[in-house]
Amino acid sequence: MTLTDPRSVVEVKRDGGVVSDEDMRDFVIGFGRGDIPDYLAASFLMACYLRGLSSAELLSMTRAMVDSGETLSFSGIDRPVVDKHSTGGVSDSVTLVFVPLAAAMGLAVAKLSGRGLGHTGGTLDKLEAIPGLRTDISPGAMERQVRRVGCVVAAQTDTIVPADRAMYALRDASATVGSIPLIAASVMSKKLAVLSDLVLLDVKVGSGAFMKTPESAGELAAHCVELAAGYERQARVAVSDMSQPLGESIGNALDVAEAVEVLRGERAGRLGDLAVIFAAEAAAPMLGIDRAEAGERAERAIGDGSAAEALRAMVEAQGGDPRVVDDPRGVLPKAPVRRFIISDRAGFLERVDAEELGRASAALGAGRRRKGDPIDPAVGIVFDPKVGHRIEKGQQVGQVHARREDDADRAAARVLSALGLSDEPVEELPLVHGWHSTDDPAGT
Amino acid sequence: MTLTDPRSVVEVKRDGGVVSDEDMRDFVIGFGRGDIPDYLAASFLMACYLRGLSSAELLSMTRAMVDSGETLSFSGIDRPVVDKHSTGGVSDSVTLVFVPLAAAMGLAVAKLSGRGLGHTGGTLDKLEAIPGLRTDISPGAMERQVRRVGCVVAAQTDTIVPADRAMYALRDASATVGSIPLIAASVMSKKLAVLSDLVLLDVKVGSGAFMKTPESAGELAAHCVELAAGYERQARVAVSDMSQPLGESIGNALDVAEAVEVLRGERAGRLGDLAVIFAAEAAAPMLGIDRAEAGERAERAIGDGSAAEALRAMVEAQGGDPRVVDDPRGVLPKAPVRRFIISDRAGFLERVDAEELGRASAALGAGRRRKGDPIDPAVGIVFDPKVGHRIEKGQQVGQVHARREDDADRAAARVLSALGLSDEPVEELPLVHGWHSTDDPAGT
Repeated sequence: MTLTDPRSVVEVKRDGGVVSDEDMRDFVIGFGRGDIPDYLAASFLMACYLRGLSSAELLSMTRAMVDSGETLSFSGIDRPVVDKHSTGGVSDSVTLVFVPLAAAMGLAVAKLSGRGLGHTGGTLDKLEAIPGLRTDISPGAMERQVRRVGCVVAAQTDTIVPADRAMYALRDASATVGSIPLIAASVMSKKLAVLSDLVLLDVKVGSGAFMKTPESAGELAAHCVELAAGYERQARVAVSDMSQPLGESIGNALDVAEAVEVLRGERAGRLGDLAVIFAAEAAAPMLGIDRAEAGERAERAIGDGSAAEALRAMVEAQGGDPRVVDDPRGVLPKAPVRRFIISDRAGFLERVDAEELGRASAALGAGRRRKGDPIDPAVGIVFDPKVGHRIEKGQQVGQVHARREDDADRAAARVLSALGLSDEPVEELPLVHGWHSTDDPAGT
Repeated sequence: MTLTDPRSVVEVKRDGGVVSDEDMRDFVIGFGRGDIPDYLAASFLMACYLRGLSSAELLSMTRAMVDSGETLSFSGIDRPVVDKHSTGGVSDSVTLVFVPLAAAMGLAVAKLSGRGLGHTGGTLDKLEAIPGLRTDISPGAMERQVRRVGCVVAAQTDTIVPADRAMYALRDASATVGSIPLIAASVMSKKLAVLSDLVLLDVKVGSGAFMKTPESAGELAAHCVELAAGYERQARVAVSDMSQPLGESIGNALDVAEAVEVLRGERAGRLGDLAVIFAAEAAAPMLGIDRAEAGERAERAIGDGSAAEALRAMVEAQGGDPRVVDDPRGVLPKAPVRRFIISDRAGFLERVDAEELGRASAALGAGRRRKGDPIDPAVGIVFDPKVGHRIEKGQQVGQVHARREDDADRAAARVLSALGLSDEPVEELPLVHGWHSTDDPAGT
């Protein structure tokens, strides 16, 4: 493994050529180890951004990222192991619902999660709003917990895909975040480093997502499926709507409370619908049942309380207060200031700038601008209507949970100015635009 | 001058937009000062490489580079001041001949030069082969010397165009050296930072040059003229042949000896021809005489000894041994080992890999692989034939001047393997492909 001059790798990509598997591997692993300087890697990333990556290059890059660190496998689990990841959205708590729901249906879920950044929330931040709950769980403890309660959500560690962490930081600093193949390599390297029987991915598209058009989301989904296929792993990838917040809560404690209510069958809506869809998409191939039967089992697990019990078992296993399942709003931290958001106009809700709602919530303290910033679990925004709903002037459309009065006023005003109302009736938005899978890579 | 986020400048270029004058200025000057990190500048340079630069952006970048440091002007000189630069070639000692020749013709030449790198020689290295000669000359001393003897060649200092030095190092390290607009900005920033009445540029093209095709050389020449025009300065830019060594010597002392012989009128050939062309191209507009008359004056200055005397005056003024003009091969350092290069084939010389000859000479010690490496002034290669010449088997085609026997053997073998011979007669190569000038930007 001698790389004469890593600049020659950059030159190949710069000139529109194809980087060999060996050169890509040496470059990526060398960068992860600190042997390739930042400036050379940055010029490489910009060349990748502007020239794109072939399927072979993308697989080489992803494989090198996976091999830059440890991989995780769970040998002692007799259920099918599924993993689930979202590219990030606003009020996107599907994972919080999906994980215990899938466990209640007889699947095993061993999931590594990250923290939120920018306008999107992170599963770890949400879970840690539950008093006492810990996410720093070793691989051995993860395996034991899955064997005992069927599911675990743990924090990504520094030993898994270290090259991705280094590369993500550099992409952010060198204006190369938005490249679709680079995003695919980043997302999939983390999924492929954990051995599971099925990877479920939710590629979000719309005003609250990183992918703003269905075309770019479809391209990302196709790349992710391609990478799973390159690893001979099963993957099912949804392109789902993020043109408006998925659920109603945008915060951390608020998100958990909503997820608990969905799991208890007390709250209908798009968040629960999407979690059920994912659970059914996982259960059908993994349990060898048909799709309709899988959907019914998911509904049943919510209706009979077994999904909520699976959450209780997971929370308890991770040191959290299990009463969060019985009385979420009693157990979770609460913000001192609450302010109703009152519509100053009437009309049919036509547009929601979901990213702006995410940023307004982050500005309250629910999110972080930079990695490592602290967050406030109690604050956030609740926004009830969905696109197509009729709103009257003076109607309460949501609530701000804030630390201070002036924060609350500002957030309420931001929410109202992020809405587009129409005099004409507006159609509701689809929930899922389509699926790509290793069985059907072209997608539907 | 507040730049909110320099990443936005990179994003504009990345997405094919046009960077504003102010943003370009802040970015380049910020980089030169160390405020913009290397990795962000590297990704910017790669975006510039792949997206190109508009005329306005190129002027903004160059202006910012010039303004990153001091500028030099010579107010007390009553002759027209001309500056001359070559993009670098093999056996390219035009500057050594041109500078005293132009001075002998009544022009003033105040030139800052650099050292050689890679396969091309540098004027400073060559001059410093003359015992005692110094090139660390302050701006005030440069001006005094020009007033007294008509010409000076001094070392580029750290205070002139510091952003170019930083950017060149980063381009080299990030595989973005070959971008034509970036080369134009680098070359012209150094010329525009010195106030002269005329800039003469020699853009080399061919196997021994950085520009390998006449198209890319023409593009570089056009950009350079455009930049001079943007500064309302006069420039004349030649695209000249570097498909074979220009002169016969490839070394430092060897180059000086050849240049002295040309200035004394003892040696005809392409090196002297090109120096005379440049001197005439400078004299005609600057002295207000026609081109034919200017050419005759140049030939006369060589024939009557005044050009050689101008060299003697310059060498003496810079502390060098003036006898180099009378007996160059007696005064200059000599290598202990000499080896004839004997052709092992017969035919018409069709191709010379001039870069390979440059590298073979550098490997003897005449050049440096990295900035700061020491060089050996005595060693080098002499190669006599030109493309089109007939070579017989067993004919002596040149000579290696080396420190050691095995070095000499290796260099002689490299020279022979860099030649392409043909059984059919071969045409000689043109010397100058064309000119671009601020009077005629489209070129001829």
